[in-house]
Amino acid sequence: MRNIKIIIEYDGTNFNGWQFQPHHRSVQGELQRAVKQITGEQVSIEGAGRTDTGVHARGQVGNFKIEKEIGLPELMKGLNAVLPDDVRVKSIDEVDMNFHSRFSAKERRYKYYMVQHPISIGRQYYWYYPHELDFEIMKSACCLLIGQKNFRSFCLSRAEVSHYICEVRKAEWYEKDGAMIFEINANRFLHNMVRTIVGTFVNLGRGRITYDDLLSIMEKEDRRVAGFSAPAEGLCLEEVVY
Amino acid sequence: MRNIKIIIEYDGTNFNGWQFQPHHRSVQGELQRAVKQITGEQVSIEGAGRTDTGVHARGQVGNFKIEKEIGLPELMKGLNAVLPDDVRVKSIDEVDMNFHSRFSAKERRYKYYMVQHPISIGRQYYWYYPHELDFEIMKSACCLLIGQKNFRSFCLSRAEVSHYICEVRKAEWYEKDGAMIFEINANRFLHNMVRTIVGTFVNLGRGRITYDDLLSIMEKEDRRVAGFSAPAEGLCLEEVVY
Repeated sequence: MRNIKIIIEYDGTNFNGWQFQPHHRSVQGELQRAVKQITGEQVSIEGAGRTDTGVHARGQVGNFKIEKEIGLPELMKGLNAVLPDDVRVKSIDEVDMNFHSRFSAKERRYKYYMVQHPISIGRQYYWYYPHELDFEIMKSACCLLIGQKNFRSFCLSRAEVSHYICEVRKAEWYEKDGAMIFEINANRFLHNMVRTIVGTFVNLGRGRITYDDLLSIMEKEDRRVAGFSAPAEGLCLEEVVY
Repeated sequence: MRNIKIIIEYDGTNFNGWQFQPHHRSVQGELQRAVKQITGEQVSIEGAGRTDTGVHARGQVGNFKIEKEIGLPELMKGLNAVLPDDVRVKSIDEVDMNFHSRFSAKERRYKYYMVQHPISIGRQYYWYYPHELDFEIMKSACCLLIGQKNFRSFCLSRAEVSHYICEVRKAEWYEKDGAMIFEINANRFLHNMVRTIVGTFVNLGRGRITYDDLLSIMEKEDRRVAGFSAPAEGLCLEEVVY
């Protein structure tokens, strides 16, 4: 038995998210079908992060176990040959049998991309938000997120998790090539967490809430008090660290 | 009468090029329809560069003449509201009646984007070319293109032009964010010229032709001796200078 780790990039536009669903197009479903086609083996590929419908990934990680004796470059080439063009295997590796893409992960890194000017090229990967924002206050409020904090206010209530503590190691807004980017790294993320943080920060930048409101949203640990969820198309799982 | 200059960005993927055609989707057609819808006036919008099917633009320039008294921000907002989302008006200006987007242009700037690793995000904007290339020789051969040269070897033979001399002011290959980019600025471009130069340079990088062959291709002034035309999706009209 061999344990294969793959790094996957996908354009989430036309996927109903990562997770396999019998009647919808999912990244996991496409990958499992491709592995079956190349190796003849029915595998289960868990992802390090279960991205929602429309969310993209540049560095999703999955692993699966196969018997087949096939070279890694050959396997990667085969998978990319049968995968649809909105999902690509970027790298492949044979790893220890204990490696698990989700449970072995130590950190996930997400970026959220916004633009304030009209775009057509790459519009699938940005949230276009034309209204004026106080970007300085958005930048300075990021420090509130850092550390081991309870993110229940930023978690979809239907999520089933044992606790809401995440350790955020990096959180910052910056500008690059005319885009506004929010970068956040943490040991774990709750369902819808990044998009709700972005929506809440946009409320802050718009002046709908104050810095003190943001503080109290964090402390209330109640999803109903936070902001709206920013659109899926701006979000991208950039990297998973092991 | 007012002369309106617009800078236009479009994702060429689903367009049959810039130029209006009665039964096909064109950027010019969409823009003229939008101006009609907002102003009630039937205009003709010529572009500074007639991009082919599948070619993108970040800085195409067009102009049109209207009677209507409408504020520029309102006109731009109106156009973007009725245009499809793969074409956007980025800026708008009222200019001298003598201004002509095509004839007044002093320089066009194109970039050609290639990647050598599999991608899904942004795949519409790159030529994916997985084979090994000698990038150093491609870089160093760019100097051959600079200056007033005859580019007949790089022009589709069906083009109807009075002469084949173009003054290339900048031509270089460089790497950025994992992509290989070819940047070329000139006073004018012939039909298919950038894509044929890229195809020929890829032949050079692959070792199919030598530096001396490239020199002789330039000198022969015959389209049949140059390389193939690189795919449309990698090409983008970045800017027009007046």
